[in-house]
Amino acid sequence: MKKKAGNIINGDFTNKDILSLDQFSPNDLTKLFTLTNKMKKIAQKAKPSNILAGNIITLLFYEPSSRTFGSFAAAIKQLGGQTIEIQDPQHFSSVSKGETFEDTIRVFEAYSDAIVIRDKTVGQAQKVADAAFFVPIINAGDGIGEHPTQALLDMYTLYEKHNRLEGLTGVLAGDLLNGRTVHSLIRGLSLYKKNTLYLLSPKELQLSKEEHNAIKAKGVELITINSEKDMPKNADFWYWTRVQKERFTSVEAYEKVKNKFIVTEKLVKEYAGKDTIIMHPLPRVGEIDPAVDADPRAVYLRNEIRNGMYIRMALIALILGKA
Amino acid sequence: MKKKAGNIINGDFTNKDILSLDQFSPNDLTKLFTLTNKMKKIAQKAKPSNILAGNIITLLFYEPSSRTFGSFAAAIKQLGGQTIEIQDPQHFSSVSKGETFEDTIRVFEAYSDAIVIRDKTVGQAQKVADAAFFVPIINAGDGIGEHPTQALLDMYTLYEKHNRLEGLTGVLAGDLLNGRTVHSLIRGLSLYKKNTLYLLSPKELQLSKEEHNAIKAKGVELITINSEKDMPKNADFWYWTRVQKERFTSVEAYEKVKNKFIVTEKLVKEYAGKDTIIMHPLPRVGEIDPAVDADPRAVYLRNEIRNGMYIRMALIALILGKA
Amino acid sequence: MKKKAGNIINGDFTNKDILSLDQFSPNDLTKLFTLTNKMKKIAQKAKPSNILAGNIITLLFYEPSSRTFGSFAAAIKQLGGQTIEIQDPQHFSSVSKGETFEDTIRVFEAYSDAIVIRDKTVGQAQKVADAAFFVPIINAGDGIGEHPTQALLDMYTLYEKHNRLEGLTGVLAGDLLNGRTVHSLIRGLSLYKKNTLYLLSPKELQLSKEEHNAIKAKGVELITINSEKDMPKNADFWYWTRVQKERFTSVEAYEKVKNKFIVTEKLVKEYAGKDTIIMHPLPRVGEIDPAVDADPRAVYLRNEIRNGMYIRMALIALILGKA
Repeated sequence: MKKKAGNIINGDFTNKDILSLDQFSPNDLTKLFTLTNKMKKIAQKAKPSNILAGNIITLLFYEPSSRTFGSFAAAIKQLGGQTIEIQDPQHFSSVSKGETFEDTIRVFEAYSDAIVIRDKTVGQAQKVADAAFFVPIINAGDGIGEHPTQALLDMYTLYEKHNRLEGLTGVLAGDLLNGRTVHSLIRGLSLYKKNTLYLLSPKELQLSKEEHNAIKAKGVELITINSEKDMPKNADFWYWTRVQKERFTSVEAYEKVKNKFIVTEKLVKEYAGKDTIIMHPLPRVGEIDPAVDADPRAVYLRNEIRNGMYIRMALIALILGKA
Repeated sequence: MKKKAGNIINGDFTNKDILSLDQFSPNDLTKLFTLTNKMKKIAQKAKPSNILAGNIITLLFYEPSSRTFGSFAAAIKQLGGQTIEIQDPQHFSSVSKGETFEDTIRVFEAYSDAIVIRDKTVGQAQKVADAAFFVPIINAGDGIGEHPTQALLDMYTLYEKHNRLEGLTGVLAGDLLNGRTVHSLIRGLSLYKKNTLYLLSPKELQLSKEEHNAIKAKGVELITINSEKDMPKNADFWYWTRVQKERFTSVEAYEKVKNKFIVTEKLVKEYAGKDTIIMHPLPRVGEIDPAVDADPRAVYLRNEIRNGMYIRMALIALILGKA
Repeated sequence: MKKKAGNIINGDFTNKDILSLDQFSPNDLTKLFTLTNKMKKIAQKAKPSNILAGNIITLLFYEPSSRTFGSFAAAIKQLGGQTIEIQDPQHFSSVSKGETFEDTIRVFEAYSDAIVIRDKTVGQAQKVADAAFFVPIINAGDGIGEHPTQALLDMYTLYEKHNRLEGLTGVLAGDLLNGRTVHSLIRGLSLYKKNTLYLLSPKELQLSKEEHNAIKAKGVELITINSEKDMPKNADFWYWTRVQKERFTSVEAYEKVKNKFIVTEKLVKEYAGKDTIIMHPLPRVGEIDPAVDADPRAVYLRNEIRNGMYIRMALIALILGKA
């Protein structure tokens, strides 16, 4: 069967490439999140699932990533599916012999029912999807481009807690200029009404003017703040991000801003409410004090990691027509 | 059970090492290809197979190869089997601590029902087979030596299309001196009667005199040509190969001959017939114009890759006594 | 469910971290070895097992090890379980981005029912167990620290042969100073009465004074010998070990002692009895002449490797409450 490009239409995920959060309407997200709730129950049961029995999915990771790799592998195996796991294929024979990536993709689509692709280069997942004749492609991160399953798990984590994705007030902190996950989350929330986002970042790492205006035009209220003191009390969520060392040209520039804003027990005590959830896409390198981990509102280690697996279970089952 | 060396006898593949195409008689090939037809149907079904349920096969790849590795992994998992996947063991502790490869092999035969071995060194698969006490060894390529499952998939691709392996006329092009796959294919076809092969290659990469004479003695008609203009019209197949950069001592020598013969739409139009299939063992690096890919006679991307998986499914099932 | 630290109590392995041989009482070992006998039968059957169906176990190997890695992978898959396989995570993105290992562990415990950890650093497995909230941790070797499943397989190999672990006479040879496995075996045997161990090693590699005294205090008779000529005849077992090149600061110092004591056919003929088993934790690099391999008393290649898989099958089934 020929796989299908473009947006999800009328909630039909079958045989769809999943490349960007932009493919999803609010209705699609509701459908996906409802199934994710079911997947959560399946994963927590001792009884094995056979939903993907007989399915093989290739994990083709040009850029290694133990977290995302493990999450996809676990999602597939939780549903009784199998994987073909290829990491760093660029160092393997065929690719190093000068094979085009298009030919590599056609090899792996011959072996499997879907390909999960991770690459360093923005736009590579789209190119892979264009090269594949038959099987759907799932983007597991293309550099600073898209990482739709991460965005979906963030959205789902909000949905799971607050049971809605509109009328939310959140604080986004850290690297708002380069952070891929934060961009996706902002864009995702812009699909819904009456959301208010406080943006807290060092001057060098603020959301770009273009992005800022584009999101504002969609109806999200954006409030730039420069200090934790300007944070709202009792927000629905905090979304903290890592200042990415690899984006800086000098160590000094990085050191200057890296730990400007840190979640501490004190900050939580002063600004968080009882329903505020504290999120982080991980990995973190100091921007959340581990003393906060034990707080039940800290969902980054507890809920988010597992939610990533559940959402991938749901998404793959939908794409392969098994749900 | 002790595994068995040597040729397949009376079509009994059980517990046999598969090291070389030379172990197969035409009858063995017919048996294998008949089962491969069935495996093709199994793989195309949504229903999972349990033919290898409970079986574990070790993939021991001293030389990484994403294509062959993925094909074996997929073949095993398509049939409900499991793999132990070890890549680059020479960089791992035991081997780097000075363990002999014989001891390494004995370790993995204790864990699994068969070992698929890939190595850089000619003859290594035979040595591995000699070291193994119990389980059958499958050669997945030993340098420029043998790569029997690749040869079998090429033969099967011809059989699938023409329903016979005798009385065929083919063009073999590219590196006929070093090309492992082309040697195997020639040898395979020499088991059958009335085959005619046109050999088209740069002078530096012609079939060796010894090989040429040995094949001729077996009754294959060999016709050396120096230009595409001497190609026969309506051949049963074209088998194009890559000029392997790694065989040359200087870049200049490689550049001089690398793209001497290229399959273009024009060449196909002028020389191919409606039943000519265009084959290539992959990877390709320019010797077939991607514009040809869409031609239904171009089987290198479409049929050959999948056939590799089907033939490995059949072979492993036969060796493990499951078919 | 929260996983549990500390010793096994009343034979209850459920949800226990397995970090050290010290957690096991003789009764626990008897329970484990009885189940291991059953696992041996399961593995030897053609019929697949479903004991771990629906279970996912992460193999997190910071230090690659094809033997131990393969043994755990095979054990899990023999029982119908699935693995998430992460090798060299320190070279992967999250860890290389500065993530703490505690966060890495929390990621993988979210994906799986247990984590098998291998690391270069003594004590790291304990730290991993401390970091994990929910799932049990199995130590697959932490540098020169503990490697409990290796120790258990050695003990089981003795038990399998002699049907007891007390009143045994053994020869321990090679590197008794640094050899991790030999330390564990000595400690394991010290749980039982009336064991006598002859210690044969180059002066530079003798058991440390502290260790010697500690073991003696537990009631094991220790006899230091300096020559094969002082070995007892008809011992119950010989346990030979590799002199580890990586422990020496100069090649000369290594060369001087590396092959001081070698098991040869002559030595076996003169000193071994009909029930003496010859053991080695592998890899070996010359300290046992391959000519001895064919002797039925040489269990290092035959029984020990497989016993490692059986004991890991039993241990994982017990920890996950499936036996």
